[in-house]
Amino acid sequence: MGGDFGAKVTLPAALQCLQKNPTLTLILVGDEDPLKAQLTQALIDYPDRLKIQHASQQVAMDESPVKALKNKKDSSMRVAINLVRDGKADACVSAGNTGALMATARFVLKMIPGIDRPAIISTLPSTYGHTHALDLGANVDCSAQHLHQFALMGVEVVKAVEGIENPSVGLLNIGEEEVKGNEQVKAAAELLKASSLNYIGYVEGDSLTAGPEKVDLIVCDGFVGNVALKSIEGAAKMIGFSLKTAFSKNYLTKFAGLLILPILKSFKERIDPRLYNGASFLGLRGLVIKSHGGADVLAFETAIHLAEIEAEKKVTEKIIAKFEAIALEKETA
Amino acid sequence: MGGDFGAKVTLPAALQCLQKNPTLTLILVGDEDPLKAQLTQALIDYPDRLKIQHASQQVAMDESPVKALKNKKDSSMRVAINLVRDGKADACVSAGNTGALMATARFVLKMIPGIDRPAIISTLPSTYGHTHALDLGANVDCSAQHLHQFALMGVEVVKAVEGIENPSVGLLNIGEEEVKGNEQVKAAAELLKASSLNYIGYVEGDSLTAGPEKVDLIVCDGFVGNVALKSIEGAAKMIGFSLKTAFSKNYLTKFAGLLILPILKSFKERIDPRLYNGASFLGLRGLVIKSHGGADVLAFETAIHLAEIEAEKKVTEKIIAKFEAIALEKETA
Repeated sequence: MGGDFGAKVTLPAALQCLQKNPTLTLILVGDEDPLKAQLTQALIDYPDRLKIQHASQQVAMDESPVKALKNKKDSSMRVAINLVRDGKADACVSAGNTGALMATARFVLKMIPGIDRPAIISTLPSTYGHTHALDLGANVDCSAQHLHQFALMGVEVVKAVEGIENPSVGLLNIGEEEVKGNEQVKAAAELLKASSLNYIGYVEGDSLTAGPEKVDLIVCDGFVGNVALKSIEGAAKMIGFSLKTAFSKNYLTKFAGLLILPILKSFKERIDPRLYNGASFLGLRGLVIKSHGGADVLAFETAIHLAEIEAEKKVTEKIIAKFEAIALEKETA
Repeated sequence: MGGDFGAKVTLPAALQCLQKNPTLTLILVGDEDPLKAQLTQALIDYPDRLKIQHASQQVAMDESPVKALKNKKDSSMRVAINLVRDGKADACVSAGNTGALMATARFVLKMIPGIDRPAIISTLPSTYGHTHALDLGANVDCSAQHLHQFALMGVEVVKAVEGIENPSVGLLNIGEEEVKGNEQVKAAAELLKASSLNYIGYVEGDSLTAGPEKVDLIVCDGFVGNVALKSIEGAAKMIGFSLKTAFSKNYLTKFAGLLILPILKSFKERIDPRLYNGASFLGLRGLVIKSHGGADVLAFETAIHLAEIEAEKKVTEKIIAKFEAIALEKETA
């Protein structure tokens, strides 16, 4: 039910995913009657793989997380996360209110032992391949220990999604030299150096879009990460608009634009933000994927696909195992 | 002498500026003999407006600020800043080592009374007009008071450079809602609300490139500001590269690229980072402008031009007067 467009986007995206992945089962959570009415044919086409789970409430996009948690115990969001907690679903995907989704997920699923704070991870556009970054906004103040935990969790996501063995990890800073940065970042660097992770040192803001040739995973404070992510989105939008303006100047430029449309399209596809949609909440005892609220069908499909991969690769289980091993190591040390 | 290319860039840029602005006088600071040799004709062309000031040392781009301050008392950077202190120059422009330039400027010029920390301000590319932002990297941890002082200083720059009366001020945050942000940002918001500034509230990362329609001045912590700035630079570079790649695919796309070259050029000019070169150090008793180390002739010209405007509009004097008025207000309150 969530996002700026609700079922208009989520239903077609769900059907596309069912068609593309024959091993996928989807449970659509929301107001049962209208959903059934819209899905008559689909329920016949996918008798075993498409289910509807009724939820009588919805969390508004601007509702306070605390209120949603208290008053919306039968919201589509809450019911979907309950399904994950009860083992009836492997992941929850939502385009709804981020704060409410995080608060609900944290309340229902609980934290993985050994992890202090949940974090939001996503991929960023780059010319070739992807760089993943976290935290992108769950935490406004992070200690060195938090940043270290983010790195440990993030590496499991990169391994699962990119299928690489030992992802490189960089720490976001305002320079690559040892002396740069604030106290938290400097202390986190020491923890990462001492860890078994493939830590490559400090990286700067431009590394976020430099791709895996530079670094696979970038770790940062949620305030910095969120501002950087939105700065990149803003820059892309501004540049896209300027390009459009240049081609809209007069009839001649418009004609030229039409002629090179396939080139502009292939360029756009490379950096299409819809193909980067989907941020995972890490640190919880269950998978929750947040789609952009303004996602269209393709973008929401991308988020569902991310959930498929992370569920299949058992990212949550791997993070739990990793932190159990760390706890055991500490005990025996 | 500074920057990645030294006199190869700074000399032609200086001559271009002298030619464009007949009221401008430039003092080139550096190794006198080679400078004189390279400027024989220019010294004849501009007998009164081009001067050379000898400096026997240079600060290396990777030299530590502390060492530069201690051991390079006759560096081109230090001598140039001395000229500002002594009233022999209205501003210093350098493409050299940022840390050393800041440390030297702070040591030689001293802080303006009432201002705790210097800050770095610059303009960001946007489709129409400019948004200014500070701090872009001088401070890794800022209190609410620091952010408030940055806003007061930044407004004077925007007034001078853009020629507007009452610039709008936004506070960089991870959401526009009141509840968002860390403690420093929330406390700074209260200070800005209570001030006489045209404070419009929280803005997100995408506002940095949204132009003056959204906001004229964005205030942030130097860590966040630096990461955001470099994220935008990285995104622009990545998008530019992707566009180039799309046009380099085959003979046909290359030919199409040639045909629309003027359009691509007009697009590129809009967001050309060289036209945004030049960051001002604020809070000091004298003007110091830092050019990007990798600046080419056009970019370095932009930095010199910025110094011309800020000197002409007496930005430093206006900041001093503003903080004197604030101090007086406090005394009489």
